[in-house]
Amino acid sequence: MEKLHVLKIGGQVIDDPVSSYRFLKNFSSLPGKKILVHGGGKLATDLATKLGIPQQLVDGRRVTTAETLDLTIMVYAGLINKNLVAGLQALHCKAFGLCGADGNLISATKRKHLDIDFGFVGDVDPTNVNTKLLKDLFDLDLTPVVSPITHDGNGILLNTNADNIARILAVALKDHFDVTLTYCFEKKGVLSNIADAESIITQLSRKNYEELKSVGIISKGMLPKLENAFKAMDQGIDKLILCHANAINTKEAVVGTRLVRA
Amino acid sequence: MEKLHVLKIGGQVIDDPVSSYRFLKNFSSLPGKKILVHGGGKLATDLATKLGIPQQLVDGRRVTTAETLDLTIMVYAGLINKNLVAGLQALHCKAFGLCGADGNLISATKRKHLDIDFGFVGDVDPTNVNTKLLKDLFDLDLTPVVSPITHDGNGILLNTNADNIARILAVALKDHFDVTLTYCFEKKGVLSNIADAESIITQLSRKNYEELKSVGIISKGMLPKLENAFKAMDQGIDKLILCHANAINTKEAVVGTRLVRA
Repeated sequence: MEKLHVLKIGGQVIDDPVSSYRFLKNFSSLPGKKILVHGGGKLATDLATKLGIPQQLVDGRRVTTAETLDLTIMVYAGLINKNLVAGLQALHCKAFGLCGADGNLISATKRKHLDIDFGFVGDVDPTNVNTKLLKDLFDLDLTPVVSPITHDGNGILLNTNADNIARILAVALKDHFDVTLTYCFEKKGVLSNIADAESIITQLSRKNYEELKSVGIISKGMLPKLENAFKAMDQGIDKLILCHANAINTKEAVVGTRLVRA
Repeated sequence: MEKLHVLKIGGQVIDDPVSSYRFLKNFSSLPGKKILVHGGGKLATDLATKLGIPQQLVDGRRVTTAETLDLTIMVYAGLINKNLVAGLQALHCKAFGLCGADGNLISATKRKHLDIDFGFVGDVDPTNVNTKLLKDLFDLDLTPVVSPITHDGNGILLNTNADNIARILAVALKDHFDVTLTYCFEKKGVLSNIADAESIITQLSRKNYEELKSVGIISKGMLPKLENAFKAMDQGIDKLILCHANAINTKEAVVGTRLVRA
C-alpha cells in the first residue's frame, strides 16, 4: 500500500515563526501523500484576553461558549490554517486548507455530558470522516491542512480536539494507505526524566506506559496525548511516533518515541 | 456550454441571520455548477473596534496594516467562510470553503501605489486564477465558497476586494462555461430613484450608466460595483445581474438590473 503521513502540530510550533518555518520546510519535502493537522496555540487565548471573553476550564478542558466558538473558528480555521497553507504554497507544496465542514470532511456530535455543559465541543469518530473526499484531494495532488473545527451537519460548527482529529483521520484511512501517525511537539519525545531533554524513551508499549504513569514518570500534558496515540493503536494504527517538530524528515538518527504493541 | 453561476454576496446579507439563511436556501437549490464569493460585512469592523485596531480609509479604501490583515483573515476566511459552508452543508449543498491560498486558487500582487501605502492589499487579474483547480472541484461535485483573501505565492496573505474576486473568477472560467455573474446586495437592483426601492432599472448599458452617473442618479456605493461589473463585460462576460440577495432562484418576474452591451 502507498504510504501516508498524518502529522499533527501543536501550539508551540505555530506560535514561533522560526519553528513554524523550519517545520513547514521539512514537511513540504516529505515524499508521498501527507495530511497536516494543526491545533491552536496561544493565539486563541491571547485574543480571548484582548476581547475580554472569559475562558473556563473544567478538568483541563475548555468550555466553548458561542463567543469562544467564534474565536476558535477565526483563529484555527482562519488565521492559523491560511497562514500554514500560504507558507506551504511558498515552499511548492500544494497545500489546501480545510475544516470539518468543508466538503463535509468531518461531521461531529455535540458533546453530551451529564454534569457539565462543554458548549460547542464536537466529539468525533473514524466513521465521521469523508475518506472519499481525502482520496479525491490526493488524486488532485493536493495536501490537506486540517483545522480542528468540525460541524454537526445541521449548520453548527464545533470546536474539536486536534489530537483526536489526527487520530480519526489516520484510522479512517488505514485500509487505503500504509499510515504513519506522528504527533509533533516541543520535546524530542516522551522523556524518562523531565529535567533531561535528551532522555528520550525510544520505544514505548502500553504496558511500559502504564508502569511509567503509575510511578509518575509520565504525567501532565503527556497523558492525554499518549492516551490518544494508544487509542489509535487500538484502532489499528501501527506506526505511531511522538517527536519534536524539527525532527520531521531529517536525517537525525533519533526521531522521538515510537509506540509499540508489546 | 454548461451553465455556471458566480454569485457575490456582501455584508448586509451576511450580517443578518434571516437574510443569510434565505439566501443560502435559494443558492443551494440553484441547479448546475456555482461559486459563491463573499465579502466581509460589519463583523471585521466590529472586531477592529473591540480590539482597538484603528481603521484607516483612504479614498474610501481600507488600509490593511498587518494587524488589520490578521483580522480580515480571521473574519473572512475563518468565521464567515466556515459558517456559510456549514449552512450550505446543512442544506445538502456540497460546499467547500477556500481562500486564494488554498490549492493556489488565486495569487495576487501586493498593491503598489506611488503616494499611499495600502498595506497588505492584493490586486488580482483573471490570469491569476487556478481554473484547473476549480474544474477539478466541480468534477468532484463540490461548490466552492470563496473568501476575499489571496496570497502572493511567497507566503504572504493579502486582503482583496470581493467584487473583484467574483469578476476574475467569472472571466477566468468564461471559456469553459456559460457564465452568469450576479452581484447580490440589499437593494432590488440599480434604482432610478434612490427614495423608491421599486424603481428598478431593468436594463443598463454602459452608455446609460455614464449618463445616469453624470446627472447624479447613480452615485456613491453603486459606482465601484457597476465599474467592476462593466469591466467584467469588457472582459467577455455577457450575463451580468445586480439584484437583491433574496431574488436568487425565485420565480419573481423582476430579478434586478441586467447589464447590456447596447
